[in-house]
Amino acid sequence: MKIDVLSLFPEMFTGVFGSSILKKSQEKGLVQYHVTDFREYTENKHRRVDDYPYGGGAGMVLTPQPLFDAVEALKRENETQQPRVILLCPQGERYSQRKAEELSKESHLIFVCGHYEGYDERIRENLVTDEISIGDFVLTGGELGAMVVIDSVTRLLPGALGNEESPVKDSFSSGMLEHPQYTRPADFRGMKVPEVLLSGNHKNIEEWRVKESLRRTWRRRPDLLEGMDLTPQEKKWLEEVKKED
Amino acid sequence: MKIDVLSLFPEMFTGVFGSSILKKSQEKGLVQYHVTDFREYTENKHRRVDDYPYGGGAGMVLTPQPLFDAVEALKRENETQQPRVILLCPQGERYSQRKAEELSKESHLIFVCGHYEGYDERIRENLVTDEISIGDFVLTGGELGAMVVIDSVTRLLPGALGNEESPVKDSFSSGMLEHPQYTRPADFRGMKVPEVLLSGNHKNIEEWRVKESLRRTWRRRPDLLEGMDLTPQEKKWLEEVKKED
Repeated sequence: MKIDVLSLFPEMFTGVFGSSILKKSQEKGLVQYHVTDFREYTENKHRRVDDYPYGGGAGMVLTPQPLFDAVEALKRENETQQPRVILLCPQGERYSQRKAEELSKESHLIFVCGHYEGYDERIRENLVTDEISIGDFVLTGGELGAMVVIDSVTRLLPGALGNEESPVKDSFSSGMLEHPQYTRPADFRGMKVPEVLLSGNHKNIEEWRVKESLRRTWRRRPDLLEGMDLTPQEKKWLEEVKKED
Repeated sequence: MKIDVLSLFPEMFTGVFGSSILKKSQEKGLVQYHVTDFREYTENKHRRVDDYPYGGGAGMVLTPQPLFDAVEALKRENETQQPRVILLCPQGERYSQRKAEELSKESHLIFVCGHYEGYDERIRENLVTDEISIGDFVLTGGELGAMVVIDSVTRLLPGALGNEESPVKDSFSSGMLEHPQYTRPADFRGMKVPEVLLSGNHKNIEEWRVKESLRRTWRRRPDLLEGMDLTPQEKKWLEEVKKED
């Protein structure tokens, strides 16, 4: 997979692309990251990438020309006809694990990151294929959102995760939140591990885990339980959990 | 504000803390960032920070000792009695602009970032004050979530944003998604700016903007409209928008 990023702050990506799974995935040849400062594509002599909004108002708006030209250059260079061109913005589709899985099957992703500025609407309508928001909060630019999407997509590429990096259990893979986990020592400054986990009784341990998973999901994210396909036993435990609360 | 981060990958933060608003805010003395590798606090000779989960299963779990000791050292060093200690994890409270505003009023934040591993439950129960999730997707570690929270909090500190960085209009501040924005040229490769924005008629422009804001919110995030306190005029426009769709 080829991942291109268009940003006015390319140095923001160095630490993240150079560490951990993203670094290793690039070394293994699974993915190539490339960050381009799209100011390089400006055609005006002051190298301005933004201008005042038509109709007035505060703030600046990214002008279409540098971004259109940068995306077209990346398409030519990579000989990709239809890369996904992803804009990070608060108005976008809410990012989810399902979307990460969808993007992980592509061969070329181009991320467009504005910073401070708004985007000229023609960029949204005629250049990008996906608008993504990572959540209902305001960030200074699209860069952190792009890093989040890139990390979640990269770790899904076959071979990206070694054994030591495989998660205890991915949240969201079962649809429920993960049950509590404990490791040594069994007594840390008077805080003890639940007896059942030390019992060696695998049936009881599994039962405790499913029940605690249900409890945590019920307490913290009851929305995840809606429409979930629970077994009759899980339904019974869920009722017990609700009564205990 | 003092912001501490506990992470096994401190180099991930360099680019983000050294760019844009986060860099400027530190230079202005509004905030100080400090990243600590909590492996420095291990007491075992192999400097291990994790161990196998009690009760069996795949993956590793972060052991409590290094994180408890690191947080206690940061409290002593900063003479802060009650810093917010924030754990990034998929089971946490969903992050929002409201939470960013709340955190921006604190004097000391400590972010705990696991990577690959799960957290021993005693860390959640007895060390952290807030568990935060930035969304329903799986990331390799808590670092990117911490950066997202730190960026959104820093930009709310008084004096952090200069004029050039003030957004066109923050999404979520009005509760609605932002209307489309356009800048020069009025005709870019045949793609034109709507006539009304070139008209100079401020009343019509404002009306177009509110209506397009309603349209975008209705199309993309109808959940935001629920319970919103619309004026009678806005309600009428919303009905028109729904009919036009």
